This record gives sequence, structure tokens and C-alpha cells, in this order.
Amino acid sequence: MESDSLVQSAASVAPIAGDELKRRRFLQHAGGVLAGAMASAATGAFAQGESASPAAAQAQAGPEYPPGVPPWSKTPGKPISKHPYGMPSPFEKDVALDVRPTDKQYWSSSARSPLQDLDGIITPNGLFYQRHHGGVPAIDPAQHRLMIHGKVEKPWLFTMEDLRRFPSVSRIHFLECSGNPGYGVHGKTAAQANGLVSCAEWTGVPLKTVFEEIGVDTSAKWVVAEGADAAALTRSIPMEKCLDDALLVYSQNGERLRPEQGYPLRLLVPGFEGNMNVKWLRRLHVVDAPAYSREETSKYTDLQADGKARQFTFYMEAKSIITSPSGGQKIPKGVCEIRGIAWSGHGKISHVDVSVDGGRNWRRAELQLPVLTKALTRFRLLWEWDGKPAVIVSRATDETGYVQPSLEELVRLRSLNGTYHNNAMTPWRIAENGELTNAYA
Amino acid sequence: MESDSLVQSAASVAPIAGDELKRRRFLQHAGGVLAGAMASAATGAFAQGESASPAAAQAQAGPEYPPGVPPWSKTPGKPISKHPYGMPSPFEKDVALDVRPTDKQYWSSSARSPLQDLDGIITPNGLFYQRHHGGVPAIDPAQHRLMIHGKVEKPWLFTMEDLRRFPSVSRIHFLECSGNPGYGVHGKTAAQANGLVSCAEWTGVPLKTVFEEIGVDTSAKWVVAEGADAAALTRSIPMEKCLDDALLVYSQNGERLRPEQGYPLRLLVPGFEGNMNVKWLRRLHVVDAPAYSREETSKYTDLQADGKARQFTFYMEAKSIITSPSGGQKIPKGVCEIRGIAWSGHGKISHVDVSVDGGRNWRRAELQLPVLTKALTRFRLLWEWDGKPAVIVSRATDETGYVQPSLEELVRLRSLNGTYHNNAMTPWRIAENGELTNAYA
Repeated sequence: MESDSLVQSAASVAPIAGDELKRRRFLQHAGGVLAGAMASAATGAFAQGESASPAAAQAQAGPEYPPGVPPWSKTPGKPISKHPYGMPSPFEKDVALDVRPTDKQYWSSSARSPLQDLDGIITPNGLFYQRHHGGVPAIDPAQHRLMIHGKVEKPWLFTMEDLRRFPSVSRIHFLECSGNPGYGVHGKTAAQANGLVSCAEWTGVPLKTVFEEIGVDTSAKWVVAEGADAAALTRSIPMEKCLDDALLVYSQNGERLRPEQGYPLRLLVPGFEGNMNVKWLRRLHVVDAPAYSREETSKYTDLQADGKARQFTFYMEAKSIITSPSGGQKIPKGVCEIRGIAWSGHGKISHVDVSVDGGRNWRRAELQLPVLTKALTRFRLLWEWDGKPAVIVSRATDETGYVQPSLEELVRLRSLNGTYHNNAMTPWRIAENGELTNAYA
Repeated sequence: MESDSLVQSAASVAPIAGDELKRRRFLQHAGGVLAGAMASAATGAFAQGESASPAAAQAQAGPEYPPGVPPWSKTPGKPISKHPYGMPSPFEKDVALDVRPTDKQYWSSSARSPLQDLDGIITPNGLFYQRHHGGVPAIDPAQHRLMIHGKVEKPWLFTMEDLRRFPSVSRIHFLECSGNPGYGVHGKTAAQANGLVSCAEWTGVPLKTVFEEIGVDTSAKWVVAEGADAAALTRSIPMEKCLDDALLVYSQNGERLRPEQGYPLRLLVPGFEGNMNVKWLRRLHVVDAPAYSREETSKYTDLQADGKARQFTFYMEAKSIITSPSGGQKIPKGVCEIRGIAWSGHGKISHVDVSVDGGRNWRRAELQLPVLTKALTRFRLLWEWDGKPAVIVSRATDETGYVQPSLEELVRLRSLNGTYHNNAMTPWRIAENGELTNAYA
């Protein structure tokens, strides 16, 4: 990594690239696979890496199909399931949350979303990242209550049915743990490097609506949110955020929240660090001053070089990571679509630049539309890898003009004393044999 | 149902309602639940139906919590799972696909999405509707091939790795079986009434890109798509659609397609009837004329009153259904948010009107933004139920100006001879005790 070149101005960024690649023929390196009656192999520009692909190698040798008929076309498949909740194919069993085998225990622990295997911006509920402080409680929704009290006209106790009766909204937002990935952590895969981030469509009640109902004192400045888990995780939320876009959420991607995501109720404060989005929410205490709880004093503060800590650093700043190709993967020479995700707690992503030479030169990537505020944004850039060692890296800019920093830049600003809010770029090194590794590892 | 009033012009529709309800106090019917130190019950406007809610009834009796601490707050919960793919809470076990117990067999059968339990527009993969013609094949993706041949310059055989190397896009679109719900079917629940529709974020390759690569003859007018299932399900797709927004899809809601949805590859022709989106796609034959396959002649055609059949009726026309409250549910008197989904195979939903008097008068519902083309669109309308019998029904209009018909209107146009393309409104009757049933049942 050339750290200097990573901080060059946006003025040096080339216009959106890839059009010249799109105009060329992707299949130029090979004749038609079915040029007579029978197959030889798919070896176009997108399939030229025979050595990297066992399937392509087999195809090269002359596949049985067609005209050979595979077994699954010969007999009826599985009938409609008696257990009517679908699961992924057994062939995808390795696509799973990434759990560190070295953790001493798994009650206060985390599991990373397999970013390198995911497409689009929606994270399926089964693969949404997890971070728990006291394990996952098994809450009976009929017994669960949300208490709102303190500086309000009408302190209130809500059942889940009460809350579901309120006017609702649905919004697509990312969530990210502020410890994603920590400092000095240079994960081998995209999951290990930055997998404590995910994105879903959330449905619930605007907190503003509920607060208007129970009458919040105009003098109240903070709301202390408490979870019903054994950790009773407690965070202080500024009243301004509660009256802006905060939600009391009961559904995620259409269905009720999963236990790992706070079933039956969680707080959502879009763009704020993960653990402020309190799961298993049981209490909102409306007060004048923050609680200075464990999770906003000894933890989740940012120790600086001078020994002082930045506190209440709510916002997850702009970040991006290339998810394909990424660490642990191997690519063949030739055309390659670089794919990744970008996000910002401050709003929309305005653009993402990609470098294939470790930050010397940048090209603007295409963003998948629509770009939503405080949501994952998928970016893509066509590139032709010439087979020489390279370092690929992405850099996000959000609508406030904030530019994602390099790690060197971030450390210069904030030292290596901290644990949280590392939003630096993740460069991947490509070796001559096509294997990718974390450029910092 | 007053069929005449159902076809009145949009001019008689009242402006967006609900604002006056929002301004009133939702909690007006009850004192503060925590007005001293301890709880009594949540009995505001959204919680006034004590008899309908065992939880509320229990709260009424004086809940133990707070200050009583529930068991899940006292001991650590479940640690991070060793099987790192999440599942819904056991308390949600009844939220499942709806399978007809009366089907003679389950290889050529269907399972309905539980619309009455879902929020937002994304259907979670485990609850996406299913329709199979020869069971669900268990396909090894490394062995799977897509053959494209016929009127092309370079007939080709693609592996999954080849296809994943092509430039990709992600799009949110609905899918609906054209047999949803059939005629003479008046399901008791929203799932049974119209549950063969779902919506997801799909990722794959634009078919146009692949066709440009292999060089399609300008004379070619149709593409015959064939599945690798035992039914070898075969449908003819107009070339115009293939060069417009058709996709070769390998991912759904971030992860690889589920087996029930065509793993490892399906065709997506947004807005066209479900079975044209051929699952387990193994072949595209580029030709001059349609195949006149079983699924576009003896099946999936629309028999009219005169004995002639409408053929190649691709488009799923504008439709909507109220999902909450809906058949099988029970509501208390008072404020109620009417929620539902609308969609159109022709593009975006422009508006949805809701009637609470069986179609005499209509109010415009709020649409959840952003409204996406050929995607489910969530609508909502605040309403205060006075406890008298009522019939609630929704009516969608799409951006072409097409208005969803009443059943009477549709039958008048097309007779009851057909099986497919019933996009009529679904009215729900509310009895004095708050119970909802299908108004046609």
C-alpha cells in the first residue's frame, strides 16, 4: 500500500470505466462450445481460468451433458416439504456465519456475515451478523413488555400487540458493529476483515410516534435504552435521534425478528453503532443526561494517543470493501467484475472509487440503483487482470463529502490505542497465481 | 360486495386519509399504565381490545414485570451457535408456508407465502412461495450447465462459474404464479386467498449481455427455456423480453438461490407469469416460433366464454390485497392500521385505494417509498373501526392507468372458464365480534 497515494484528491479519479471492456467480446478466447453438435468447453473471456475451475476443467475434457441427462432430470425431485420453512441447498453448507474458533466463550461473542459469498444489498436473516453480550435470550413475546418512563406525561407499559397496532413503516438500513474490524485485525477473508456489517428491510413503529403519544417533556435530552438479555445491555440515545428516524422494530426482511436480532423487539437508530440498536428492548428511560453505562464508558469509547477517550461516537462513518474477488479466493487471468459494498451512517453513498494498483490510480465504480440512505450500496467495476501481481482496494465517499480513509491516515489521526470505528480501506493483494490475500497480513 | 361501486372512477376517491387519526391521541382511552410506581395495563387506542389479546388481559390483571424480572434476564442466553445459520424463534413456528392438505401428491404442487404474517416488501427466502411441476431437484452446481443454441453465432455451454464471471446486476422484483388464486377459490386467510406471490432482491446476469456475447440472429423471435427438473418445464419467451430486463439469476436476497427457487440458476422475466421464470434453467433454444409446450397450450392458457383460449398471456396485471387485518384474524374496536401489498407486471404502482364499506367509498392509502418497478409495494391506511360489521377491500392502479377489477367485473369480461390471471380484489368481511372472513366465502 502506498499510503500517500491513497489520500489523493477526487480530481484525479478517472471517469466510470468498464465500457470499453463491455464492448469487447467476452468469448474472444475460445470457439463456440457447441460449434458442431457436441460440447467442448466454456472458455470465453469469463471462463478462461481453466486451472482455477475444476468444473471448467471437467467441461474441457468433454462433459457428459448435454446430450447426457443428469440424474436430477430423470426422476421426480423432492415433493413440497412437510416442514414448510425453506433452507439453502446442502451444496451451500460452507456459506455460513464466520465464528472465531479462538474465542474463550460464546455468550459475549460475535459471528461475521460471509460477505465474500453474498450478492446485492439484502443480507438473508440466517446470515446476518451477530454480536451478543449475554447470549441470546429465548423470549416469549406474549410475556415481553416495553416500559417507557421518566420525563414523560404518561409512563406506559406496552405489549407487543400494542406496538404492532401503531402506524408502521418499513426501511432498508445497514447495521454495523463499531468493533468492525477493530485495529490490528487483518482478516483473511472479507467476512473476517469486515463481516460485522449487514443490511435488511426493517419494519416497526417510529419512536417519534410513540413519544408523541405518551408526551415527552421538552426538557428531556436523552433516552436510556435497556435490553432484556442477561447483560441488560444499556445505551444512552440522544433525544434528537429518537425524534428523527429511530424505530421500534419487530420485523426484519418480512418476518419477525430472529432471536439473535432482538426478538421480539429491538431499537433501530439508523447509522449509529451496532450496540446502540438495543436488542430485546424492554425499557426506555427518558432523562436529562446519559447513563454513562459500561457500554459507553469502559467499552465503546475510543482511546486516543494522548490517553483521552472520545465518547459517544455514534456515527458509523463511510466505509467500503471489495467482496469479490477477495481474500481466500483465486481468480483466472482476464476479465473480472470487481464487486463490493459501501455504506455510511451519515446518509447516502455518493460514489465509490476502485484502484487496482494499491491506490496510485482510481476509477469510478458503478453503483447499483436505487442508492438508499444508511443502507448497503453495491458497487461494481469491470477490470481485465493481466496476470501480474496487483493490489485492489475501494474507497467510499458519502453525500456529506466525507472520504473513507486509508488505515495509515486513520492511525495517524487516532493512534492505535482504540478498538472501535476503524473504517479504513481493505486492500487485497493478488499474487501471480491469482490467489488473493489481505495486503496488510 | 357492491360490484357497481367497485368500478367507480378515481375522481370519487378521497385524498390521503389518516392524518386526522394521527393527530388524535392514540392512548386516549386509558390512563398511564405506570402512573404511580407500578403497572396496570396498556389500554390506549392501540390496545383497547382486551378481549382479543390474552397478553393485554394478563397485563390488565397486573403483570409481574416490571419490577418482576423475567427468566431470560436472569441467566445468560444461548451462546453463538455452532451451526452458524440462523432460524426464526420457536415462538414463530406457526409462521410457515401454507400447504394444502388436500393435494393428491406434492411433486406438482404449491406452497403459499404467509402474507398475513409478513411486513414490508422483502419475502424471506424460507417463506417464499413455491410451485413445482416435478418436485425439487437436488442439483450439484459444479455439474450444472446452461446450453444456449439455435439461431446464434456461437452456440455455447456455460458453467455456473462462467456465468458468475459476467457483469451482474441486482434488482428487487415480485414473482407471482398465474394460478394465484384461480377462480372460485376464496381462501380463508391472505395466504390461502393470494399467497402465490412473493418478492426478493435477485442478482444475476442480464440475458442481453450473454446474448450479445454469443451473437443472436436478428431474425430470431423466441427463446425456448427449459428446466433441468424431471418435468423439464418448458416455456417460450419473446426475444424482445430477453433483450429487455430478463436475468439469469443465481442469488436471491443475498445468498444463492434456494433449491425450491431454481438452484443453481433460474430465468427471471420480471412481471411475467411465474412459470415463465424457468427454474433449474439448463437450456435456452433461440428460435423463430414458440414451442407450444404443454405449459403454454393445455395449461397456462385462459379459456373464455366462447370456448376459445387466450394464449401467451404473459403479464401479471395490477393487483393488491389487504394482509392485515385479514381472514382468520380478529381486531378490537378502535384505531387500526390497514396494511397490504400491491404489484403490477407492467411497472410501478401509482396508487392504492382502500374502501371500508365494501366499495362504496374509497380513500387513498399511503405507499411505502421507494416504489420500485415490478416489485411489491406496501400500502397503509389508518382507520378507526366503530365495531359495526364492515367490508374492507383494496384496489391497485399502476403507472399505465390500469385499475384492478372487482371479481364481478373480471368474470363479466372473461367468464369463469379460466384458471389463470385472476387479479380481482379480495374483500374481507369484519363481523361484530371483530373476526375477519373472506367476503366471498
